[in-house]
Amino acid sequence: MSNPTAAMLVIGDEILSGRTRDSNMHHLAGELTRVGIDLREVRVVPDDQDAIVAAVRALAGRWDHLFTSGGIGPTHDDITAESVAAAFDMPIRVREDARALLQAHYDSQGLELNESRLRMARIPEGATLIENPISAAPGFTLKNVHVMAGVPTIFEAMVASVLPTLTGGAPLLSQTLTVQRGEGDVAPILQEIAVAFPDLTVGSYPFIRGGVHGVNVVVRGSDKTQVDAAVTRLSGMLEG
Amino acid sequence: MSNPTAAMLVIGDEILSGRTRDSNMHHLAGELTRVGIDLREVRVVPDDQDAIVAAVRALAGRWDHLFTSGGIGPTHDDITAESVAAAFDMPIRVREDARALLQAHYDSQGLELNESRLRMARIPEGATLIENPISAAPGFTLKNVHVMAGVPTIFEAMVASVLPTLTGGAPLLSQTLTVQRGEGDVAPILQEIAVAFPDLTVGSYPFIRGGVHGVNVVVRGSDKTQVDAAVTRLSGMLEG
Repeated sequence: MSNPTAAMLVIGDEILSGRTRDSNMHHLAGELTRVGIDLREVRVVPDDQDAIVAAVRALAGRWDHLFTSGGIGPTHDDITAESVAAAFDMPIRVREDARALLQAHYDSQGLELNESRLRMARIPEGATLIENPISAAPGFTLKNVHVMAGVPTIFEAMVASVLPTLTGGAPLLSQTLTVQRGEGDVAPILQEIAVAFPDLTVGSYPFIRGGVHGVNVVVRGSDKTQVDAAVTRLSGMLEG
Repeated sequence: MSNPTAAMLVIGDEILSGRTRDSNMHHLAGELTRVGIDLREVRVVPDDQDAIVAAVRALAGRWDHLFTSGGIGPTHDDITAESVAAAFDMPIRVREDARALLQAHYDSQGLELNESRLRMARIPEGATLIENPISAAPGFTLKNVHVMAGVPTIFEAMVASVLPTLTGGAPLLSQTLTVQRGEGDVAPILQEIAVAFPDLTVGSYPFIRGGVHGVNVVVRGSDKTQVDAAVTRLSGMLEG
């Protein structure tokens, strides 16, 4: 049986302008691999409702899960919640349980739950909340879309809340062999292994360190016996 | 006049599995902003011909330029060149000028230009080569698609080769104000500035440092007078 699939949508002008270096994609990719969900596509779009709606429809329609990052704060350019609601033609309004979470949080800090902050309690109808242990403003899951914050510490906490609720598949196992040879030298060997083990993927990632070319060869698959067999054979061929 | 637009396509299983942290997106985003080309969308897809062809057609059809990263090495999973050729229904074969570049490079290193390495001389018909000053194997431009290596040092060198050949627009200027207040506190002020200066974008990027909430407010636009005026007004309001 094949693993569940997923896509990610990163939302934010600041990523596309180069101002901010996204780290959420790498974090989510690693966590999904760990629980056996295959990340199949990532898109990055600006803070633009049409762009977000189109991407949500395309990705949520195609893959089992869609995870979004960014655009759920209190400012005018935080339009992810409205856009996800629009993608599914669902109404969105301030929800009392979300408002209560924010009220308690700001009360404890002696801050006012003003109109801007109250925007973060706007949740599409039919969604379930995702806990935010850091700054209270919740994410939410609407159908197969998991809407999370862009600030990395909060994003990571939300991922930790959501993943245990999803059904994963067989975790992807991987083993890496590092070879101090050019990628073009080892390519015929990798090709042979890829043909011999059609259920595995054999990736090669060249590097240059101190002027010397090398390559990390990574064998991936969900069957440990096959991965081990491929690595043993590969190792013999690369030393041969 | 609005700036030229661009998209980026990052190709590679290793990014989606979380094994490798992509750095090329952030580099390209910064360089495009510097020369006045607006990066409007990024996609990450696996080493899969159907996925690459579909993404190339969608992105090259919609934006002025498409930049790709990854999948042009010598191994069996390097299928970007074939896929880009297929996206435009162009034939692809070993081209003599590309072969000569590789031959000279491997001769100088005392290495053999074997069949795997020769794959890197396969160039779609009608393409122009992009110089690779590091490991010789060239990238190429086919129509509005610029195909470059995934290894960051080589990707960055290829970007430096390509960008001067493109016509940019007005570089995007930005100024940042850092405020030690919650994002929800300053949101009404940002909204007011965004309405008053419709040609500018006003972004807010919250952070938590040492337990204290703050926000970087970034004003962006291509007209320096307007950016300065907005920042002066914003600064007064944030201190008020």
